[in-house]
Amino acid sequence: MSLIVTGSIGIDSVEAPTGKANNVLGGSAIYFAAAASFFTPVRLVAAVGEDFPDEYLETFRGFDIDLEGLEKRVGSKTFRWSGKYHENMNVRDTLSVDLNVLAEELPPVPDGYRDSEYVFLANTDPGSQLALLEQFPNRKLAVADTMDLWISTQREKLVELIGHVDGLVLNNDEAEQLTGESNLIVAAEKICDMGPKFVVVKKGEHGALIEHDGAKVVLPAFPAKKVVDPTGAGDSFAGGMMGYLASVDDTSIAAVRKAMAYGTIIASYNIETFSLDRLKQISRTDIDKRFETYREMLAIE
Amino acid sequence: MSLIVTGSIGIDSVEAPTGKANNVLGGSAIYFAAAASFFTPVRLVAAVGEDFPDEYLETFRGFDIDLEGLEKRVGSKTFRWSGKYHENMNVRDTLSVDLNVLAEELPPVPDGYRDSEYVFLANTDPGSQLALLEQFPNRKLAVADTMDLWISTQREKLVELIGHVDGLVLNNDEAEQLTGESNLIVAAEKICDMGPKFVVVKKGEHGALIEHDGAKVVLPAFPAKKVVDPTGAGDSFAGGMMGYLASVDDTSIAAVRKAMAYGTIIASYNIETFSLDRLKQISRTDIDKRFETYREMLAIE
Repeated sequence: MSLIVTGSIGIDSVEAPTGKANNVLGGSAIYFAAAASFFTPVRLVAAVGEDFPDEYLETFRGFDIDLEGLEKRVGSKTFRWSGKYHENMNVRDTLSVDLNVLAEELPPVPDGYRDSEYVFLANTDPGSQLALLEQFPNRKLAVADTMDLWISTQREKLVELIGHVDGLVLNNDEAEQLTGESNLIVAAEKICDMGPKFVVVKKGEHGALIEHDGAKVVLPAFPAKKVVDPTGAGDSFAGGMMGYLASVDDTSIAAVRKAMAYGTIIASYNIETFSLDRLKQISRTDIDKRFETYREMLAIE
Repeated sequence: MSLIVTGSIGIDSVEAPTGKANNVLGGSAIYFAAAASFFTPVRLVAAVGEDFPDEYLETFRGFDIDLEGLEKRVGSKTFRWSGKYHENMNVRDTLSVDLNVLAEELPPVPDGYRDSEYVFLANTDPGSQLALLEQFPNRKLAVADTMDLWISTQREKLVELIGHVDGLVLNNDEAEQLTGESNLIVAAEKICDMGPKFVVVKKGEHGALIEHDGAKVVLPAFPAKKVVDPTGAGDSFAGGMMGYLASVDDTSIAAVRKAMAYGTIIASYNIETFSLDRLKQISRTDIDKRFETYREMLAIE
């Protein structure tokens, strides 16, 4: 089935105990799209500025990503973000954010994309996500990501969005912030009560949980010795998950559990390097091999 | 196979956002013993004071626990602990500790216990754990628990202990404190390099991981909506794990994975009430039913 992602593409500068990366390709939509493209072709709707390096377009072309919806906007600048990870890699500080083109009008959705059935609204303000959602009348499964900023500054709009999507993806702190509930199982139930069929709570190094039509699944992260840069882990998790679901066109709990496992595996690769460097090197065969190790790790006799 | 646990029995007072419990039965050895007794008879070596209420002995008798090694010491007082859980239940403050009988000489090990093959040294100072270990010359699997206090005050003795046991159980903060390594996978490897065949890192609401002869298994906690009191969760986890291993007399990775799953299930019951109240109500049938739900949750097709 057709899969589309809308969201940000940025130029990131990341500092971590493991090293530094300056002016590298980043942004929620590109981590998602690269991860999902291992399972199914991905349509991308995003805007960058005229400063966007051509070499990054080459990176996109290394994945199965359709670029018709990528707008290089003359007179605008690309979104930029810089951040620094603490010693334990679970906490990071944002050092600077320049919204640039993200603060301008949304990129247009190509007519050929309007029939998209699997829709992922990567993190941006909920008003924009709602406006984008409406452009996909044939959607079978629409899932949104969000962040702490929108929960605190645009709660009403966010709640409206949550009432219109089939799934919501957010991290544990955000789930607690949104519901006031520190027990994540209860928090996930409360979010489902707001409308969506399922909610995925990402717990970083501790994995992810899903509340799906009353069923609960918690999966651990893949045991990773090598963590160089956690940036994009959540987006690549979501990409692997949605990419797999679109590829099998199935949203049963069994399919969702397997999709979460694939998301877990892709994220475990993503964090091994800065930017998309590791995802550029691996193949579906690598992913399936690690997936099998993970599946066996969880198979209790 | 015969299973023995040595450790503390205490009278606890616990305050949590969910309520209060004053002067209830607690201590590492009793949580362990109660949990393990669902799988195999448990021998208990511990000392209490003359103030120890007879009604608590009745509680012990409700489980399959041999009390020959329980010493009620005249002229001594029972260990007492009081603590308060924070709003999110993952953090607690110790309000008071009265070591009492725990600060005196160790309880004697009955002659009939010296052939014990599965040995669990619940948390106490590593010198005492070493002295107890030597009393079980037929041990096939000796596992110790520890805590932050001994890592900071008796590191040398603790390292000696770790070199003499087959397995070590500790929580994530302790693993980091012991190794200086924030990546728990790497921390677990480093602890295995100190001697034991395996190390289990307990992560509270996020489950547990094991490093076992080079194999790594991470399992999530059972998704629990009802958390009344986390006291004893780690000890009941260890009890379920060791109880199962002793019952099947197998320490292969497949058996250990299943044992961790059983530990996870017992801990999920334990936290539903204060003290041992929930474990007193359930049967092996209840445990196996929840175990099956958990097994299915993790079975990726």
